Amino acid sequence: MPRVAILGTGLIGTSLGLRLHSHGRTKNLSIVGWDRNPDNARKALDRGAIDEHISTIEEAVRGAWLVVIAAPVLAIHELLEQIGEAVSAGLIAENAVVTDTGSTKAEVMDWAADALPDTLSFVGGHPMAGRTESGPAAADAALFEGARWVLVPGVNATEGAVETVTSLLNTMGAEPMFMDAAEHDAYVAAISHVPLAAAVALFSLVRGSEAWPEMSMLASRGFLGATRLADSDTSMAYDILVTNRVQVAHWLERYEQSLAEFRERLLNEEGGEGLFRLLGEASLDYARLAAGEVGRDAWSPSQSPNEVPSLSAFDMLLGGALAEKMRVWRESTDADEDPVSKRRLR
Amino acid sequence: MPRVAILGTGLIGTSLGLRLHSHGRTKNLSIVGWDRNPDNARKALDRGAIDEHISTIEEAVRGAWLVVIAAPVLAIHELLEQIGEAVSAGLIAENAVVTDTGSTKAEVMDWAADALPDTLSFVGGHPMAGRTESGPAAADAALFEGARWVLVPGVNATEGAVETVTSLLNTMGAEPMFMDAAEHDAYVAAISHVPLAAAVALFSLVRGSEAWPEMSMLASRGFLGATRLADSDTSMAYDILVTNRVQVAHWLERYEQSLAEFRERLLNEEGGEGLFRLLGEASLDYARLAAGEVGRDAWSPSQSPNEVPSLSAFDMLLGGALAEKMRVWRESTDADEDPVSKRRLR
Repeated sequence: MPRVAILGTGLIGTSLGLRLHSHGRTKNLSIVGWDRNPDNARKALDRGAIDEHISTIEEAVRGAWLVVIAAPVLAIHELLEQIGEAVSAGLIAENAVVTDTGSTKAEVMDWAADALPDTLSFVGGHPMAGRTESGPAAADAALFEGARWVLVPGVNATEGAVETVTSLLNTMGAEPMFMDAAEHDAYVAAISHVPLAAAVALFSLVRGSEAWPEMSMLASRGFLGATRLADSDTSMAYDILVTNRVQVAHWLERYEQSLAEFRERLLNEEGGEGLFRLLGEASLDYARLAAGEVGRDAWSPSQSPNEVPSLSAFDMLLGGALAEKMRVWRESTDADEDPVSKRRLR
Repeated sequence: MPRVAILGTGLIGTSLGLRLHSHGRTKNLSIVGWDRNPDNARKALDRGAIDEHISTIEEAVRGAWLVVIAAPVLAIHELLEQIGEAVSAGLIAENAVVTDTGSTKAEVMDWAADALPDTLSFVGGHPMAGRTESGPAAADAALFEGARWVLVPGVNATEGAVETVTSLLNTMGAEPMFMDAAEHDAYVAAISHVPLAAAVALFSLVRGSEAWPEMSMLASRGFLGATRLADSDTSMAYDILVTNRVQVAHWLERYEQSLAEFRERLLNEEGGEGLFRLLGEASLDYARLAAGEVGRDAWSPSQSPNEVPSLSAFDMLLGGALAEKMRVWRESTDADEDPVSKRRLR
């Protein structure tokens, strides 16, 4: 029976096993699991995510047709080296497929190129789904449903290997997105790693205030939501940040500049219209993103706020929801004998 | 029948009316509502939050024993002036009570002192509950359940007036917290307004990137959660920021410094332990806050990360969950023939 080995049965590895098992066509697979922490693997077994808990990496990958590494990024390095040794020892077929689910890709691809023989196909992966909760108890067969899953085929990966991994993630209900490792790491720095770093920095700043005991009493869902990524698993967060430090630092610096510009705009009492417009645009664009508008079709370059739109695009913009927000703002700030009656209260 | 007038029947005003009506003891009250947008007041009437929709402020406050202003902060100024005129015209009893639910308090208290006669009691208020959704459709009688509600009595407010407002918010299921206006505004700048500004700045930065169409495809719950406050009602957000600009700017600047320190720590390859500790502390403290640990009893000053803890406090710290996290980190980075077997994978 073809064997799939899951190395790391935490949130991601266990969710993956659960989904494989819930899927009819995989009943002829043997899914085995290993975890650094045997408790995690036992829990994954109890939940039915794996068929067998194997206590050594060497035994887990023996005879595997597909190896999925679902571990924090820094641990992937050593796991790849051990897989390379298992190939040398003849434990794994030379045409086996190895993939991972690590949150950064450039270092992982380098490690795989160094550690694995050329005959083996490595296809790097990154499911764009997750929770701040970790461990097999938080796992969910539907975790990847509708999510995008980045795939970065190694230089030696065969077409068949890419198809195998694509088929795996189709089974997960996810949508493949191919890109190169550097591109991936730059994008996730902005969309995922800087939000994590920012949440930790903001939470730590406010928590470090002398008035924190009082402030904590005033914290409501807004603060908890905005800083929720500070609750991420520490090892995972650390690994992500240090394997993408240059890109994260680049975006952090840009964010510092954005905050400084926001602050200067706020302190400029003449800058009300610009501030209102910034808030209005962010609110409208957030709603579009939350509604699932993604990709080039939804966000044509002419709508980028960093460019001066053409006159017609500008008209179009002003004919829409932002124009309505701006109209309300202008009316409410016009000199008028009865400004309140003109001010929208919601 | 004693009349309560709610000026502004959006999320807060409608939730307040719903709760008053669901509460048995208030069946002898007449609750009337006004909104700048008559649709909002009609919806509040349809939902049973108010007994009557009144189309002018003058008529709404006529004979009111309690006036609740539930409008965006900048609109409160004009509403207070109109209430002052209604008192001069003899429409409201001189011992009536006026309160508000605005998110900043220093400017509101100044406006009230200017606009209202000394005989009237003004008790400023700020319920620490809310949603990014706005309007009467999002209202919920349980919105304030368990929330803290800051009260800032005006200099002329009688003891009876403070009791009236305290009783109102007890009815809401909220817990009163008395403080002065400047203190309130400083605290909420850190815990509420900077998170709002930061969400807008981060969302706008990433959305303004040329790669936004691709990045938007990679955005998952982490990004949406971290930037969710960008979805706040634009008028409300604008009013909050401009009526608390000095405090918000102060905390924004501190936040910029925190991010710069985080960035420098990240780029320092020797600084791993400090970075891991920062992530671990934030994660543990976030969990405590999320579990409801608030106030001086929960957060003794000796635990502040800005102070060097005493040796015994440091030992205590190292005996707890952080010590476990640090142990894992040190083990995983020790030179060792088999570091993976020691590395926790979750």
